[in-house]
Amino acid sequence: MAVYTDVADDELRAFVALYDLGEVLSCKGIAEGVENSNYFITTETGNFILTLYEKRVARTDLPFFIALMEHLAQKGVACPTPLRGRDGTALRELCGRPAAIVTFLAGMWPRRIQPFHCAGVGQALAALHSAGASFTMRRANDLSVAGWRPLFAACAGRAREVHPGLAEELDGELGFLETVWPCDLPSGVIHGDLFPDNVFFRDRIVSGLIDFYFACTDALAYDLAVCLNAWCFEADSSLNVTKARLLLDNYRQARPLMPTELAALPLLARGSALRFLLTRLFDWLNQPAGALVRPKDPLEFLRKLRFHRTVTSVRDYGLDA
Amino acid sequence: MAVYTDVADDELRAFVALYDLGEVLSCKGIAEGVENSNYFITTETGNFILTLYEKRVARTDLPFFIALMEHLAQKGVACPTPLRGRDGTALRELCGRPAAIVTFLAGMWPRRIQPFHCAGVGQALAALHSAGASFTMRRANDLSVAGWRPLFAACAGRAREVHPGLAEELDGELGFLETVWPCDLPSGVIHGDLFPDNVFFRDRIVSGLIDFYFACTDALAYDLAVCLNAWCFEADSSLNVTKARLLLDNYRQARPLMPTELAALPLLARGSALRFLLTRLFDWLNQPAGALVRPKDPLEFLRKLRFHRTVTSVRDYGLDA
Repeated sequence: MAVYTDVADDELRAFVALYDLGEVLSCKGIAEGVENSNYFITTETGNFILTLYEKRVARTDLPFFIALMEHLAQKGVACPTPLRGRDGTALRELCGRPAAIVTFLAGMWPRRIQPFHCAGVGQALAALHSAGASFTMRRANDLSVAGWRPLFAACAGRAREVHPGLAEELDGELGFLETVWPCDLPSGVIHGDLFPDNVFFRDRIVSGLIDFYFACTDALAYDLAVCLNAWCFEADSSLNVTKARLLLDNYRQARPLMPTELAALPLLARGSALRFLLTRLFDWLNQPAGALVRPKDPLEFLRKLRFHRTVTSVRDYGLDA
Repeated sequence: MAVYTDVADDELRAFVALYDLGEVLSCKGIAEGVENSNYFITTETGNFILTLYEKRVARTDLPFFIALMEHLAQKGVACPTPLRGRDGTALRELCGRPAAIVTFLAGMWPRRIQPFHCAGVGQALAALHSAGASFTMRRANDLSVAGWRPLFAACAGRAREVHPGLAEELDGELGFLETVWPCDLPSGVIHGDLFPDNVFFRDRIVSGLIDFYFACTDALAYDLAVCLNAWCFEADSSLNVTKARLLLDNYRQARPLMPTELAALPLLARGSALRFLLTRLFDWLNQPAGALVRPKDPLEFLRKLRFHRTVTSVRDYGLDA
């Protein structure tokens, strides 16, 4: 639950006047998302989303994110499309923060994941990767293997507050992944955070992907491993093999997976589970006083991580190959 | 900042299907309001507000609020109008809570109050009171003089945490108001909470009044006293006489004030200041652990209360009469 910045009506009116959108009729802070402040705005010409980028998103990364959304939209991916003002600019300032207006996407994100959702996500992710192939800007994944050690170091001393023996287990896992992490897989633009709250559905069909603020250049199969962790486990942290098969099969029907990618998948899934475990652990241990956001449970990803350690081949994810 | 209940997409779809609104295209929790959970919903036929009534609003009061909004809308007051489903019902259940869909109102609430806002509020309040004259349901004001003593009793022991000597000052004020509180003024439906965040403007004109969940039957001039406190003070808690005059003059052009109402206004303003001081004090001292709402400063209303104590006649509010 976010909205960190209160935008005054007169400032908003002046801001929107820089675009060809007509008069602002309404602006409501949206109680979702934790990285930025998002507002649902209605103008004489329609509904839009206004985003104010708060501290957690680096200003230097914003041109990458804006250009990526423009590129993907142009390639037919249903994602928020940044609007350009009459001066041709999409990224400007509001209330002392970088700000952009993007298109509004119809659809709702699913609370209870059904198998058809996983099939849709697989297709949508493959389409995103294909559309991203012609995007020329690059951004390193600062939350990949090289970023995990510093994150772990910042949490290790207090990890036992969350779970006994957690620091030792993470230290061992981290050491292993640092040694074997693959670096030669097909790479390109990845979403990096394609959880259910970032995928809109309409009539059982994916109608939009949102929140590209972890997007970066990395192994495409890693993005698939993120989705495996985000979509295919039940509430008790057991894998739903039907969902996993639908995710992976629908992905590879649109973008075939190389044998190296299939072989690396269990490892990528361990890494992805560790990445979310570490960021959640950090947020859990560093809740600001008076925070408006309830941190998510890090241990959900410890259970997923342990599962992937038992996986010997993609057959355990429901695939034949 | 609210949204206490997460509404699942499938539950929402089933709920909206009870109305003639077409398919739901989007639903975003609104990060405003503290009493209820509000969602901005977009359907194939337009934009609407879905409200889930949380604990703080008594279920038994909901038929009054719903009927009042329907009545006022019918009389031409721009306010949220409850929609009736195909079964003729406006109030039903969603996620175990009473819920209603109301019309969406264009406009934004003003952050920086200008004199013209006060003129508009005066007119709108008089129009609300006139439209309410033919409304036959009644609801006692449980936050009027009889309700202040129990609220004070619940806070008195810890009032000094907020301000030294506060309990003694409030005790004295309360004793005085209980003795002299007027009970023979013209009464009817009042809004009871017409603060800036409950009044939408468009092009310097009031475009809507919202949040009728403190509405009740009480002295009409008391509602005006609430607005005086809510709209006509500067950030340093000094009265802006121009704003006060515009509020009061515009109100009485549409609904003339009786001499008894004018004479009672300073007293009503003291009572209104005490009412908001007490509820804010209570909320300040009773913040639930992990609350998502930052309580408002109670002392703002102590300063206003002290000002009204120095007022000898409505001339101090900028009026000639």
